[in-house]
Amino acid sequence: MTIIEAVPNVSEGRRPEIINSIVDSVSAVENTRLLDHTSDPSHNRTVLTLVGNAKGLFHAMVRLYEAAIQTIDLRNHDGEHPRIGAVDVVPFIPLQQASPSDCIALARQLGETVAKRFRIPVYLYGSAASHIGRQPLENIRRGQLRGLSKRMHQSPWQPDFGPRSHHPTAGISAIGVRGPLIAFNVNLATHDIQIARDISSAIRQPTGLSYVKAIGVRLAEHGLVQVSMNLTNYQRTPIHHAFNFVKQEADKRSVRIVNSQVVGLIPAGALISTAVKNLRLTTFRPDQVLDERFCPQMAFPELPPFGEE
Amino acid sequence: MTIIEAVPNVSEGRRPEIINSIVDSVSAVENTRLLDHTSDPSHNRTVLTLVGNAKGLFHAMVRLYEAAIQTIDLRNHDGEHPRIGAVDVVPFIPLQQASPSDCIALARQLGETVAKRFRIPVYLYGSAASHIGRQPLENIRRGQLRGLSKRMHQSPWQPDFGPRSHHPTAGISAIGVRGPLIAFNVNLATHDIQIARDISSAIRQPTGLSYVKAIGVRLAEHGLVQVSMNLTNYQRTPIHHAFNFVKQEADKRSVRIVNSQVVGLIPAGALISTAVKNLRLTTFRPDQVLDERFCPQMAFPELPPFGEE
Repeated sequence: MTIIEAVPNVSEGRRPEIINSIVDSVSAVENTRLLDHTSDPSHNRTVLTLVGNAKGLFHAMVRLYEAAIQTIDLRNHDGEHPRIGAVDVVPFIPLQQASPSDCIALARQLGETVAKRFRIPVYLYGSAASHIGRQPLENIRRGQLRGLSKRMHQSPWQPDFGPRSHHPTAGISAIGVRGPLIAFNVNLATHDIQIARDISSAIRQPTGLSYVKAIGVRLAEHGLVQVSMNLTNYQRTPIHHAFNFVKQEADKRSVRIVNSQVVGLIPAGALISTAVKNLRLTTFRPDQVLDERFCPQMAFPELPPFGEE
Repeated sequence: MTIIEAVPNVSEGRRPEIINSIVDSVSAVENTRLLDHTSDPSHNRTVLTLVGNAKGLFHAMVRLYEAAIQTIDLRNHDGEHPRIGAVDVVPFIPLQQASPSDCIALARQLGETVAKRFRIPVYLYGSAASHIGRQPLENIRRGQLRGLSKRMHQSPWQPDFGPRSHHPTAGISAIGVRGPLIAFNVNLATHDIQIARDISSAIRQPTGLSYVKAIGVRLAEHGLVQVSMNLTNYQRTPIHHAFNFVKQEADKRSVRIVNSQVVGLIPAGALISTAVKNLRLTTFRPDQVLDERFCPQMAFPELPPFGEE
């Protein structure tokens, strides 16, 4: 029994009727649950969060591609966020007892199907990448749709599935597998943006934190600055490591931490491991968490592996 | 949709064949799950942990009474733990979206049924108590089976259900409703038991901690002492308050904390709130916890309220 998370990013964040039609396409698919959707008008982008089993998510994502390709025309698209397609990127994340290989199989199956059905080139990234140069999504998305459309004709940048030229209105799509990502921000009691930038730079040094992306951001409305982080592997670099590192760097600069913030969703395990550390529960076992004991196996009925569509 | 925890305590912790027959009686009841069972030979007692909906737990507990009453004879019973019956005490604990009133209805329904079917007197305690003097289980269990059997004939101590004299072999039973209880121990780097006792005594003072029971214990095999606590309301007195209080008292006495320990199960929320505090996540909402978003409603199929048996 496996539960997988899908976080499709769609290139429309302004027109409510189009956003609604895309959200509706995945809001009631068997063996999935839509947990969240957030639209950003300046990015012109909508991010959806679903959980489900492989079969359910496969069907939901095919429906989402269909709805997005019918309504989005990239020739008329502008927005701050870099993008290569109408369904720009679909990451799958293993949860609970799911393994990366379950997600990789799902990513390949989805890529093959949507490439054939909608005639869009598909690139696999992250743990699903066909070679190491395609693991970072940034490498694929470099130069955005225009840049990738050109590179596509060079043999190392042939798409994993689909035609060797972009879809006229829907562009290209990236489908991948990654670990859970935590968006964690620490707010500092200063107006001086340079302090947030210096701390972010310290995080990025080899002596800093692995698996953490950091930038300094101004929170003008609060008169504060923020160290804005993405934790890409919270098992290796736990959230309290990130907090303690920022606190130590802020202390050096005699700046106080105001508070912190998790943006969006966070796996319970990421917070539980912080508590276990802080309470010095050196012999704690995950199966002592009551909720974990009766949830995972019951969350969805067992189903055969998803097949050909 | 409600999920309830049941933690029945049965007066047999030595003879494996009897323990097995009691565990078997509740190991596969529809709409419940047996999470844990632990037998203590010196206490001569077995504690089981189940979760389920009200209807499932009702059936499981009737089966447990039947198995225990068939096999346990209190006239031949000895053990360190105080007891009044073969099924000594059955607490129900509301989890997830369950409310105390769901649990109180279940406790009353179970009490009425087992009193009638097995002819044992039943006392309701905790939030299910019929008056305030019966809320603490200690009040009911004072003097154990012999003491309560005598008091039973005085009108304030009439049982809530069943006959006014104890069952010849199965004694009496207490059924109640309480909040989740956390067994949390902090180990101190000293041989001096008086330090653990003094800290426990400080906890029990009016200036100490509410909703925390504490005793000092010697851990001879490790050459340490322990402040052994029961947290009876972790929402009001969170686990990090207990830890910080013990740490502060230990610091005053120049004693180092070695580590801590949670015995048995702990609700995820108790650890998550500790992490939220320590990471200063001042705007954190419980619905940001990914696991909580797809577990609670899916854990059991919806069922009609449990009816008359």
